[in-house]
Amino acid sequence: MSATAAGLSGWIEVRRQAVDDGLARFLPAEGDGPSAIREAMRYSVFAGGKRLRPLIALAAAEAVAARLHGDAEAAGTLALPAACALELIHTYSLVHDDLPAMDNDTMRRGRPTAHVVFGEGMAVLSGDGLLTEAFALLAKEPRSCAPLASDALNGRKLRTIAIVAAAAGMAGMVGGQVIDLKAAVRGAPALDASGLHDMHARKTGALIVASALAGAVMAGADDPLLDAMERYARQVGLAFQIVDDILDVEGASASLGKTAGKDAAAGKPTYPSLYGIEQSRHRAAACLEAALAALRAAGLEGQLPAIARWVVNRSN
Amino acid sequence: MSATAAGLSGWIEVRRQAVDDGLARFLPAEGDGPSAIREAMRYSVFAGGKRLRPLIALAAAEAVAARLHGDAEAAGTLALPAACALELIHTYSLVHDDLPAMDNDTMRRGRPTAHVVFGEGMAVLSGDGLLTEAFALLAKEPRSCAPLASDALNGRKLRTIAIVAAAAGMAGMVGGQVIDLKAAVRGAPALDASGLHDMHARKTGALIVASALAGAVMAGADDPLLDAMERYARQVGLAFQIVDDILDVEGASASLGKTAGKDAAAGKPTYPSLYGIEQSRHRAAACLEAALAALRAAGLEGQLPAIARWVVNRSN
Repeated sequence: MSATAAGLSGWIEVRRQAVDDGLARFLPAEGDGPSAIREAMRYSVFAGGKRLRPLIALAAAEAVAARLHGDAEAAGTLALPAACALELIHTYSLVHDDLPAMDNDTMRRGRPTAHVVFGEGMAVLSGDGLLTEAFALLAKEPRSCAPLASDALNGRKLRTIAIVAAAAGMAGMVGGQVIDLKAAVRGAPALDASGLHDMHARKTGALIVASALAGAVMAGADDPLLDAMERYARQVGLAFQIVDDILDVEGASASLGKTAGKDAAAGKPTYPSLYGIEQSRHRAAACLEAALAALRAAGLEGQLPAIARWVVNRSN
Repeated sequence: MSATAAGLSGWIEVRRQAVDDGLARFLPAEGDGPSAIREAMRYSVFAGGKRLRPLIALAAAEAVAARLHGDAEAAGTLALPAACALELIHTYSLVHDDLPAMDNDTMRRGRPTAHVVFGEGMAVLSGDGLLTEAFALLAKEPRSCAPLASDALNGRKLRTIAIVAAAAGMAGMVGGQVIDLKAAVRGAPALDASGLHDMHARKTGALIVASALAGAVMAGADDPLLDAMERYARQVGLAFQIVDDILDVEGASASLGKTAGKDAAAGKPTYPSLYGIEQSRHRAAACLEAALAALRAAGLEGQLPAIARWVVNRSN
């Protein structure tokens, strides 16, 4: 492991713990509602995800703080609720995507999916609950962060909510899932390269971009920094999906925790099926270079370059 | 029709039109995402609902403005996006409640339900989209409302988002649906009076209370006015549900636009099944009196009293 990778893995370990602690603290407590739904929500949230979106949000906040000669620790505190909210939204999307009426997946991250464990109605509701609690969290936390004035904090929170909602909504993540669902209907025309790209940009990319932007906004980024962050995150999101497709084809069932080759078997187009494995690898590498270039041009550093490399070089 | 009722119906007509126009304007436009989901979302939103929640939000905003000697028209402008967002959330809850895995309803407001028309996966996604767009709308609109300073506007919007998310989430509406779902499982113990009350307070009451509070917050209400508004809306929400149960038992299929007697036939407890029709009517009347008393004590007027009477005396 290179020095940079070692630095990243230590950084990740500490931030993942902070995110997990935050999720445990921010999720509704006992007595806030029926225990059945609290249990179902926690089952899916604490299922051993990578926490990629929260990590990107926190890295973005820290990088912006460093760039603006600000306080990196304060930036982390400011961005943590948004980081956790993004993980709640990502989790809700998995719970709903796994439903019998959608992808009908029975395993996720190596465990039975929510509807298998809690029933279909409860899975729908736990997804609804996760999405709603994410917005409750974005509106409520952090309550303050001295010396930031409360008006400034409110402005950042509101902008973050607008960014996250737009990314999660029908023009973003939900829209991507609609394209996926429509393409899976028997007899529907297969997606071409541009259709595949559009689907992933919405379904996966939009929320990854929103994660970087949310962290940056909470840390006080100005518009040029947000532009750079968006260019970085778009490339990371695309690379993430290309690598996901490669890993799927290569049959990394065990490490992915889900059925390998499933997309290909279902006749869904993938980057390897469209471009071949080698060309797909080249594309992922090109995404990485473009992501790093966007950071360099804006003077953004911290863990953002290492996270981009990790996304491209990961084996699960 | 009494003079007051005539005044209310004219008021409702104008406000309903403003809400419908707002919904058409605020919902994502063509090109914002896949047309299939836009169509599904619009199908459910424009299905001829009463718009009770938006009307309560607007009446609350106008009453607060009058009480504070403010500008009633500005209050309406400030509250309209929240009013529309509450209708989007109400609509999403109906779409998901109607799913086969939940209440399995095929008719709603006299038309086939979303999953019958668009398929189950699409119904899940259109509900997800409606919920998410509601928060996007709450964060974005109104962009400004002179002479209100933007910091003050941001503060009101953020407080509204927190109130609405808490009411819609697992301690509120989603939690109520969980209680309903659990009680409908074969062999589950029937809800007793307090269980029934708790379920409705969450499933229906919470969002009605949030509607009144959202309108009041956007119009600049202080905490004592918000307390009064909450007491008013709790009673209105409870009365609404009691009357719903009475209408259901009385077989008003045609005017309800859904299968009458369905709850009773499904073995679900209702106010009439627990207390009888006469006693249920007395309870609804008592709610009305309590709602009016809460308004009087706080000096709140406008259309709020007439709306409470309408909710209790309605026949559909």
